[in-house]
Amino acid sequence: MTWTLAQRAHKMNPSVIREILKVTEKPGIISFAGGLPSPKTFPVDAFAQACETVLRTDGRAALQYAASEGYRPLCEWVARQLPWDVSPEQVLITTGSQQGLDLVAKVLIDEGSTVLVETPTYLGALQAFTPMEPTIVSVDSDAEGIVVDDLVKKAPGARFLYVLPNFQNPTGRSMSEARRQALVDAAQTAGLPIVEDNPYGDLWFDQPPPKPLTARCPEGCIYLGSFSKVLAPGLRLGYVVAPPAIMPKLLQAKQAADLHSPSFNQRMVAEVLKDGFLDRHVPTIRALYKRQCQAMLDALKQEMAGLDVQWNSPDGGMFLWARLPAGVDAIALLPKAVDKGVAFVPGAAFYADDADPRTLRLSFVTASEEQIRIGIKALADAVREAVQG
Amino acid sequence: MTWTLAQRAHKMNPSVIREILKVTEKPGIISFAGGLPSPKTFPVDAFAQACETVLRTDGRAALQYAASEGYRPLCEWVARQLPWDVSPEQVLITTGSQQGLDLVAKVLIDEGSTVLVETPTYLGALQAFTPMEPTIVSVDSDAEGIVVDDLVKKAPGARFLYVLPNFQNPTGRSMSEARRQALVDAAQTAGLPIVEDNPYGDLWFDQPPPKPLTARCPEGCIYLGSFSKVLAPGLRLGYVVAPPAIMPKLLQAKQAADLHSPSFNQRMVAEVLKDGFLDRHVPTIRALYKRQCQAMLDALKQEMAGLDVQWNSPDGGMFLWARLPAGVDAIALLPKAVDKGVAFVPGAAFYADDADPRTLRLSFVTASEEQIRIGIKALADAVREAVQG
Repeated sequence: MTWTLAQRAHKMNPSVIREILKVTEKPGIISFAGGLPSPKTFPVDAFAQACETVLRTDGRAALQYAASEGYRPLCEWVARQLPWDVSPEQVLITTGSQQGLDLVAKVLIDEGSTVLVETPTYLGALQAFTPMEPTIVSVDSDAEGIVVDDLVKKAPGARFLYVLPNFQNPTGRSMSEARRQALVDAAQTAGLPIVEDNPYGDLWFDQPPPKPLTARCPEGCIYLGSFSKVLAPGLRLGYVVAPPAIMPKLLQAKQAADLHSPSFNQRMVAEVLKDGFLDRHVPTIRALYKRQCQAMLDALKQEMAGLDVQWNSPDGGMFLWARLPAGVDAIALLPKAVDKGVAFVPGAAFYADDADPRTLRLSFVTASEEQIRIGIKALADAVREAVQG
Repeated sequence: MTWTLAQRAHKMNPSVIREILKVTEKPGIISFAGGLPSPKTFPVDAFAQACETVLRTDGRAALQYAASEGYRPLCEWVARQLPWDVSPEQVLITTGSQQGLDLVAKVLIDEGSTVLVETPTYLGALQAFTPMEPTIVSVDSDAEGIVVDDLVKKAPGARFLYVLPNFQNPTGRSMSEARRQALVDAAQTAGLPIVEDNPYGDLWFDQPPPKPLTARCPEGCIYLGSFSKVLAPGLRLGYVVAPPAIMPKLLQAKQAADLHSPSFNQRMVAEVLKDGFLDRHVPTIRALYKRQCQAMLDALKQEMAGLDVQWNSPDGGMFLWARLPAGVDAIALLPKAVDKGVAFVPGAAFYADDADPRTLRLSFVTASEEQIRIGIKALADAVREAVQG
């Protein structure tokens, strides 16, 4: 039988992260690899109550086919809680915000289109864009993300800039107020659309981040949000907010992709969210992640002493970013670390081009504080051996 | 702001069916339009029990990120119940079988690739394939579907044939044993892959349909199945069964599309399915749909008497196919029918090319027997007025 694959299929590659997740599912491994929210934060009882209520009061509608746009009360909730003027018609509920990236790619990318990304950037976005066969171009980035001067150089002719301003995956870095405004001004001047991804914005430690890029220029931005980090990822619910110029095409792409996101899950989440649930729930996630981030920073300081390892100190989110001593390659280090009982994601996975092989991503949210101390010690042992090796 | 749309976005169009669904959501309209399973068949109590069990026993895992392949016990269940030798590794759980079509399109279609379809064919497949910019070619079809002689002529160079052998959407027709075997033999001779879609196969009235095409040539076929028609569509769960040559690429496309289908829903369905639930449940759906199909056939016979309207008599599924008198266009008829309180889908929506404007699709599963009688009478009144001009 002659199976001829599409040209795009040859460009698609397995997710390094998801393959690593499988390896690190071995019992006993302390994993800083996956971007898995702490299961402690999942409001299981609230979901159980919501399932019961939805099935009892509205079960048959919740189990039927539904509109591609999403469950209207949930679209309304999203529109209401965003810090700029959004109508529910601008909200499209997606099957996780990963699907938002797939839809954006389908609607905005032709073969050979230039798409601009941060250096490094979210791996899942690279995977979502790749099947539409763009040329992905990294924009120089510093501790705040996109360097605006380099953006200005690379903007002409690009279809959009993909950017994650809050507690970025993979680096944990955030953009300051001044950088955001400079970025939006430059993009507007260049006529460059922005695709803003904000799965982590609610997970701040001490103070909320500056307002989103989209709030500064709603007509020039597509905004992606998610319920995965503030409720639970296993429901696969996210959303896209898009200007009226783009929404009809995103909606058509959504219809073609999976008709609609699960109506049962949408009603369940709408039920959980009513009465200000997140206002009570999210502060508990913030407090937990702040404690665990501090535990990792403390452990790094103690265990990496004397080793030339660098790391940043995020203001929120789920990740921090580290850089190994000269000559130590994170991909080569990984199996040795796993042998010692700890896993991470090599930073190379997150670069569209010219990867820095010494970088790695550490999640501080899945492991407990004690596991963090043990895991960072094991990682330091692996680094020490590599340096001495 | 300069939004440049991808070329494919200009080719995407809103789903006629989904737009019609919105119109026919007006209270009081009897709708034969949507392909909505009867909500009476949704096992609400079984779902409520399963939600409770899953959240109580395994809640945090059910709410966490999960493997892109799908929940292993569900993959195993799918592999076990299919009537040919399938390993769980060949099963990919999808967000409805619509997503299966999206993934197949991404992996197998390049711009300008030829894809062969039935005449008419499932609209959702046309919508899923279109963004990958194929040339869609209709193969001549009769009351059993694909005419093999025409397939042989059109097969050279085509990427695949998309076919729905059981109680097809939109026509309700099925392929005989002889036709299936002839089709598979011809496809094998031509080296033509088959994408077999089987959402309705379990919904037979008197006897099960002949075995799937894929059972006759597993290496040459991708098989799509769904839980939407035997459990409930609002959970958005389906599956793809693919040969080892293709599965890794479908899996990569799945990762990029939405990471994985909702783990909570997969566990809920696996919980419902255990202990042979479908063996007890599906016969009740079959009996209901058979009664309602008969009610529609009886009503058509009575109400369309003297009008030159033709229709078929399906052996299962959800739809029958009708043809209006010469000179009566189904699209023009629709608003007049809606004025009289009844809706249907004009057949033209289901043709890749050269639509027969006199055709229409009637679903017999959503409306009650009494509504069917009233609705068919209203439809006959609309046809009579159209004939009389």
